[in-house]
Amino acid sequence: MSAGLPPNAKTLVGIGDDAAVLATPDGRVVATTDFLLEGRHFRRDWSSAADVGHKAAARSLADCAAMGAEPSALLVALAAPPGLPVSWARELAGGLAAECARAGASVIGGDTARAGSVLLAVTGLGDLGGRKPVLRSGVRPGDVVAVAGPLGHAAAGLALLMAGMNSEPLVREHLRPAPPYDAGPEAAVLGATALIDVSDGLLADLGHVADASGVQIRLASDRLRPERELLAAARKISERTGSPSRPAPTPTPADALAQEWVLTGGEDHSLVATFPPGTRLPPRWRVLGEVGPGHGVLVDDGQPRTGALGWDHFASGR
Amino acid sequence: MSAGLPPNAKTLVGIGDDAAVLATPDGRVVATTDFLLEGRHFRRDWSSAADVGHKAAARSLADCAAMGAEPSALLVALAAPPGLPVSWARELAGGLAAECARAGASVIGGDTARAGSVLLAVTGLGDLGGRKPVLRSGVRPGDVVAVAGPLGHAAAGLALLMAGMNSEPLVREHLRPAPPYDAGPEAAVLGATALIDVSDGLLADLGHVADASGVQIRLASDRLRPERELLAAARKISERTGSPSRPAPTPTPADALAQEWVLTGGEDHSLVATFPPGTRLPPRWRVLGEVGPGHGVLVDDGQPRTGALGWDHFASGR
Repeated sequence: MSAGLPPNAKTLVGIGDDAAVLATPDGRVVATTDFLLEGRHFRRDWSSAADVGHKAAARSLADCAAMGAEPSALLVALAAPPGLPVSWARELAGGLAAECARAGASVIGGDTARAGSVLLAVTGLGDLGGRKPVLRSGVRPGDVVAVAGPLGHAAAGLALLMAGMNSEPLVREHLRPAPPYDAGPEAAVLGATALIDVSDGLLADLGHVADASGVQIRLASDRLRPERELLAAARKISERTGSPSRPAPTPTPADALAQEWVLTGGEDHSLVATFPPGTRLPPRWRVLGEVGPGHGVLVDDGQPRTGALGWDHFASGR
Repeated sequence: MSAGLPPNAKTLVGIGDDAAVLATPDGRVVATTDFLLEGRHFRRDWSSAADVGHKAAARSLADCAAMGAEPSALLVALAAPPGLPVSWARELAGGLAAECARAGASVIGGDTARAGSVLLAVTGLGDLGGRKPVLRSGVRPGDVVAVAGPLGHAAAGLALLMAGMNSEPLVREHLRPAPPYDAGPEAAVLGATALIDVSDGLLADLGHVADASGVQIRLASDRLRPERELLAAARKISERTGSPSRPAPTPTPADALAQEWVLTGGEDHSLVATFPPGTRLPPRWRVLGEVGPGHGVLVDDGQPRTGALGWDHFASGR
């Protein structure tokens, strides 16, 4: 599995010994581990091996970025059925290596085993570069909430796949989410009080932050309007699945679907941060709302929605 | 999963955020990842949940020790069927925590998912304490080969389980191997030129070392004689499985079985090292042979056996 997995400058001992050795000049290492399981997190008829590699790497590397760290390395455990073509594993390694390269990391170790389906367990390691880790628990009333990266795109892509519209551009954002890794350290430098990546959906993930910080997060619906491409995708799906063509209510079911993707779609791995009031944010950070006393996550003045909805991989896309 | 999993002094951020943060005062971290899959590496009718926790932790922590590092942390990804009792997961956590405590490590993070069977992927992190990592590639002709910890005990335990003799003491050594973690840093301090843990079997693992170093490893059969308890176990199994009771040839099939456990049994996670000639070894290091020019692993003057045999978990115990 080491072919096509180049080490980087931090790899002191790479693939092939009992363990790898990674430089951690900061004196600390950020570490996270995640499964990517066939049938649950990906389907081999929808995702190419390279797609699976990209997605598996993105999942763990985004968690490193969500601590304010620069991703530095990946360990990959792969179990596969005996009949899996060697070319599939090679393309998987290619996808892992390519996503690592996007993040400045490299694959330094792994394990292989046999199993009835393809199982990946990916550990990401990251470097805080002397900065404090940005936790979920540091938010204060008055902070602003902002996001870097798309919301709802991966959910829209999954819904399009499920409706059989495999060639729509948003499908790629489900198969290969592209987390803005450098936004993590950027948020830390800007003084972010909390940081998380959107893996379970915006409301669910901000719910974790609100709970950990003991605050209420208030989102503004006019900052969460679905983009044109999401609305178009939702309409295509509504047409395909035969929604009634009577004069549409306001909002139409398609508009509501697109809005749901923005609020509850997971796996975009965009980064959501809270910043002290008055922080000058670079343009890629889009303000979504603000923080007050209380608990939970509100959209405008609606009911708190914390925990009410969450991304359940394939299940919630139906 | 965090209940019953206490952090230690190196845990700067533990379970519950996007990622953990571990202190790495050495400026490097040793990292390794391993699967432990139900049906392949353990059976729930043979292993208790605590046994599985011990074994999963031991597998990765021993890999850290086999670099000459002190194990410092574990990340545990657990996938399980929806019907798995909560008590099982709690006991698993107890086993993980107890084995970590044996090694001076703690569980700092993880992931959970649903799957049709119990899947564990465990990442071990370790601290070199300023020492060079001990690789597989540093052996020189003239070095001596020595082992700390048992050989063939886990294989004997598995064979006893397969023969239905579940209450034999050696069974426990299959269910809960107890790697001598501190022998890893000790070997490094003693100047070990190579170090590996016995996970695939002595011959197979020394074969990796011989290959990586470009040397021949010559073991002495009189230093590899099965202990009395292994011989007794092999005889019990031979009797149970109905070997002929005619006057026994020399060696008996039972003696040969016990010898095979010593040479090819995996999963004891004992540590095997090579040392420069004349190294004064503490008593727990038992010399097994020496190193010469050439390639492969010999027992006495027999044929090289590198790669010919290897531990294949349940398969090779039959």
